[in-house]
Amino acid sequence: MRYCFGVDIGGTTVKMGLFGESGEIIDKWEIVTHTENKGEAILPDVAASILNKMKERELSGAVVLGIGVGVPAPVSDDGVVDGSANLGWEYKEAKKELEHLTGLKARFGNDANVAALGEMWKGGGLGEKNMVMVTLGTGVGGGIVSDGRIVNGAHGAAGEIGHMHVNDEEPEQCGCGNYGCLEQYASATGIVRLAKRKLKKDKRDTMLTKETVTAKAVFDAVKAGDAVAVEIAEEFGRYLGHALAGIAAAADPSVFVIGGGVSKAGKVLIPFIQKPYREWAFFAIKDVKFTLATLGNDAGICGSAKMILGE
Amino acid sequence: MRYCFGVDIGGTTVKMGLFGESGEIIDKWEIVTHTENKGEAILPDVAASILNKMKERELSGAVVLGIGVGVPAPVSDDGVVDGSANLGWEYKEAKKELEHLTGLKARFGNDANVAALGEMWKGGGLGEKNMVMVTLGTGVGGGIVSDGRIVNGAHGAAGEIGHMHVNDEEPEQCGCGNYGCLEQYASATGIVRLAKRKLKKDKRDTMLTKETVTAKAVFDAVKAGDAVAVEIAEEFGRYLGHALAGIAAAADPSVFVIGGGVSKAGKVLIPFIQKPYREWAFFAIKDVKFTLATLGNDAGICGSAKMILGE
Repeated sequence: MRYCFGVDIGGTTVKMGLFGESGEIIDKWEIVTHTENKGEAILPDVAASILNKMKERELSGAVVLGIGVGVPAPVSDDGVVDGSANLGWEYKEAKKELEHLTGLKARFGNDANVAALGEMWKGGGLGEKNMVMVTLGTGVGGGIVSDGRIVNGAHGAAGEIGHMHVNDEEPEQCGCGNYGCLEQYASATGIVRLAKRKLKKDKRDTMLTKETVTAKAVFDAVKAGDAVAVEIAEEFGRYLGHALAGIAAAADPSVFVIGGGVSKAGKVLIPFIQKPYREWAFFAIKDVKFTLATLGNDAGICGSAKMILGE
Repeated sequence: MRYCFGVDIGGTTVKMGLFGESGEIIDKWEIVTHTENKGEAILPDVAASILNKMKERELSGAVVLGIGVGVPAPVSDDGVVDGSANLGWEYKEAKKELEHLTGLKARFGNDANVAALGEMWKGGGLGEKNMVMVTLGTGVGGGIVSDGRIVNGAHGAAGEIGHMHVNDEEPEQCGCGNYGCLEQYASATGIVRLAKRKLKKDKRDTMLTKETVTAKAVFDAVKAGDAVAVEIAEEFGRYLGHALAGIAAAADPSVFVIGGGVSKAGKVLIPFIQKPYREWAFFAIKDVKFTLATLGNDAGICGSAKMILGE
């Protein structure tokens, strides 16, 4: 039997998994991400943890197919990361370094793209070959899978849809410097922003309060039939649905998989996104499915492993 | 030496080329497209023309690697076309039929996607691996190449960006049934529409007249410094540039290649598209190059041949 490792390096923890060659998760664990000193310890820590696990399980290098790694940054085809704010990295030949440290073959990918591959393999996109994954978390990210392969793009930034321009009237600036980016409406923080704006102007009774509103509170209130919350969700869905109609024109997926913290609201989300999507989508792509991500925190390690086991 | 054929089936003519295995065009010719009776003669005509050419040049089936074909319709991975209005086709197992008729391996693709591959191979995208081609003709079409491969999508409709919604205020309906599609502003006919609207309201002196305006006339007037024409071109460029900023967020190309009849206006086009593009594009993708397509009518046969010679 042969094995591989799937690694998902985040800004606070590194999630790691040992997989069998047919894709089963044999073991998973986490280590802390040490971002100090430009994150210089991160790859040595990952390497040590992998070598340690191989020792513990008595696996020789000959039976380990390689290490797949997702990182929060664009990654070039040859595994170079040219800066990652979350990890403290500047220019780093990540693939080369990890291969040198472990003696194993390594492959790096952008974390959102890798998570998309994971969801296609074992999650919300199971059985599909053309998928767009949309991650609604602190920010908005995404990944595109075309004919079973990750679309990386020229800068490893394909699928990074958070800064698509969706509103000409936005007075507040996005973190990126532009105005009216999708992330300003469809991320967890974007939903809170929409809610606060709404609650300021709308004097109807509602379960929501300006001070304590969260994305989760909005969708909980939607489930309870709160009319104000429904209108906030509609606004969220309108921006996101319209953006996805544009993305579908470019990528022609068979399924959208919605993941990230906001997706924990559950199926209640889907119609708010799907209705405006269908309104604007070209007829050939109106019937694209919408599903929720199912792998949660495992999407990254699964997609990383899949990079090694073969897309 | 080995050979392949590149075929580009359009609604009025079929363009055909014989290629050497290193990619040189050895011969090219055209036949008429017979669309009557649901286009039933089209593939037999193509087959006969190919077999005839092989006879004329004394090429045996053993030295012909295959036939690549672009058609004006979505094409499934296994070469099935489920209806093409331009060719009169309903459901057709095109690959199977052409292979049966010729005894050669065939591969089918959507014409816009195939032309994109051609431009990447030998034209405006030469040397690039991640490209978005935008075809501004009677309509607006496109093709995306990711890591050297065509992105087909689930319905063979990837890159079909003509019906991206770009304007909430449009009162006239697009041919597709929606309002405010990119094609309503950025196609040759869309530019004429913009010009007529402008000329109705704008009473300044201009070289353009409502009755005779064409896309070419607009850009000729731009070159001559006509202020009204410049504003029409700016409006065209604003819709297109903003749409491309959204597409770039999804596909992350290194180059946009602008083709189709409108692109014959030449380099004067580029700044009108690039300026609004840069205004709205996320910083990581602001510096994407813009070039003009260079293969003209040969893009289709070249891309078709490239499908056989290896993407």
